[in-house]
Amino acid sequence: MTREELIRQIRAKKSFLCVGLDPDVEKMPACIAGEEDPIFAFNRAIIDATLPYAVAYKPNTAFYEAYGLKGMAALQKTIRYLHGKNVFTIADAKRGDIGNTSARYAKAFLSPEGDFNFDAVTVAPYMGQDSVSPFWSIPDKWVILLALTSNPGSADFQTCSECTPPLYRKVLETSSQWGTEQNTMYVVGATKAAMLQEVRRIVPRHFLLVPGVGAQGGSLEEVCENGLVKDDIGLLINASRSILYASKNTDFAHAAGMEASRMQQQMSRYV
Amino acid sequence: MTREELIRQIRAKKSFLCVGLDPDVEKMPACIAGEEDPIFAFNRAIIDATLPYAVAYKPNTAFYEAYGLKGMAALQKTIRYLHGKNVFTIADAKRGDIGNTSARYAKAFLSPEGDFNFDAVTVAPYMGQDSVSPFWSIPDKWVILLALTSNPGSADFQTCSECTPPLYRKVLETSSQWGTEQNTMYVVGATKAAMLQEVRRIVPRHFLLVPGVGAQGGSLEEVCENGLVKDDIGLLINASRSILYASKNTDFAHAAGMEASRMQQQMSRYV
Repeated sequence: MTREELIRQIRAKKSFLCVGLDPDVEKMPACIAGEEDPIFAFNRAIIDATLPYAVAYKPNTAFYEAYGLKGMAALQKTIRYLHGKNVFTIADAKRGDIGNTSARYAKAFLSPEGDFNFDAVTVAPYMGQDSVSPFWSIPDKWVILLALTSNPGSADFQTCSECTPPLYRKVLETSSQWGTEQNTMYVVGATKAAMLQEVRRIVPRHFLLVPGVGAQGGSLEEVCENGLVKDDIGLLINASRSILYASKNTDFAHAAGMEASRMQQQMSRYV
Repeated sequence: MTREELIRQIRAKKSFLCVGLDPDVEKMPACIAGEEDPIFAFNRAIIDATLPYAVAYKPNTAFYEAYGLKGMAALQKTIRYLHGKNVFTIADAKRGDIGNTSARYAKAFLSPEGDFNFDAVTVAPYMGQDSVSPFWSIPDKWVILLALTSNPGSADFQTCSECTPPLYRKVLETSSQWGTEQNTMYVVGATKAAMLQEVRRIVPRHFLLVPGVGAQGGSLEEVCENGLVKDDIGLLINASRSILYASKNTDFAHAAGMEASRMQQQMSRYV
């Protein structure tokens, strides 16, 4: 999906919500946990309930890999279910390796001939340009590079006070020369909303994928006030647990839809 | 496998060779490429041929994920084939995410109840302590943290000259406080042998996993001269392509064994 198509979807749904599909069988209601493929059954119900309110879906690969081969089969069914629904699909995989190896990860997640064919993959920047650029070799696909993450450990290296320049700034400044606004986004945690102005100084128009609203405590308003791009929005705000587990009962899908709708309403003011 | 057991294996085989199992069907001889599961057939032949000369095996997950679900099934067969062979097994996965997500990756790769049950997993440090520590929650398992990688892109952030302190040094200094020599190793590329003295100043006794000898051009002698730990060796030197594709003909396994034997002979002088 191109930047223009993504913006069109955002305008049509008046939403820049990304739903994080991080399935945890232990948190699912008993009626789902007993299905033959509970992960896919759960995801399908969540997708159906949230589709009017979301423009993107982001399965985190860890939640599938943790279930071994069965989990990866559920991921394949999930992405196939998403294809054709006009949504932006993100493999939240945080991969990155030497060039010839990153090319393999690109094939795994982004290739139209592969098992998944996602629109985008999240990539860790530690290994530098040749670890990132192979992901751009497949036409119309996106790299979403980690910049400023939402977790406490982001203070260890990304924003470490004794490091000059701060690593997240160096990553943004350097990597924004590698790709374009048409094929690159950045992960910037909602829990770091106050630093969004600094991020926007370096990458004024790139889309940002913003986790950390909801269970992690970030504020949607603060993110919008500091991160919105005039005309193009430039934000995908992710919510996972707050939507997936809005209810642990048989009404889980309805509750997920209600929570997605609530967030969409908040977002509609900015579109 | 504990540090003591690993050192015992190194002494027994007079080798600190790690064989990187990075299967590429296009590089395999036709007799293997036609098998029902060519990846596993290839790996099994390579393992059988190199087992007398190697103490560790390191499948890079990208090379399996690139073949989708079939590739992951081949990875499972490969790790099961390695179990019971008294070798140290490394999932070269370069994972890392927020705490609750890294716990899923730990389960995926290290859990004795999971599909893989590796001894160790490679982890990218960008997201800090809470992205790394969940991998230590499973007893007797190892984190192998990226420090100084062998690729050109390592100059972008890890050794970037305008960054103070250099990122790889900050990562070594900070993360060596998180784990111990019993559960932590570091990736330090053989192409950076001249910097090994600096690495050893910060982590004098940690095991280092050293890729980049062979196809990437690093020197085994230089690595040993600068990186060996007195008594405990403290090195696992990885070779992938130079062993796997020593011959592209039907004698590929024999040629792989010869190349592994050649490296083991070089190493035996240091054990």
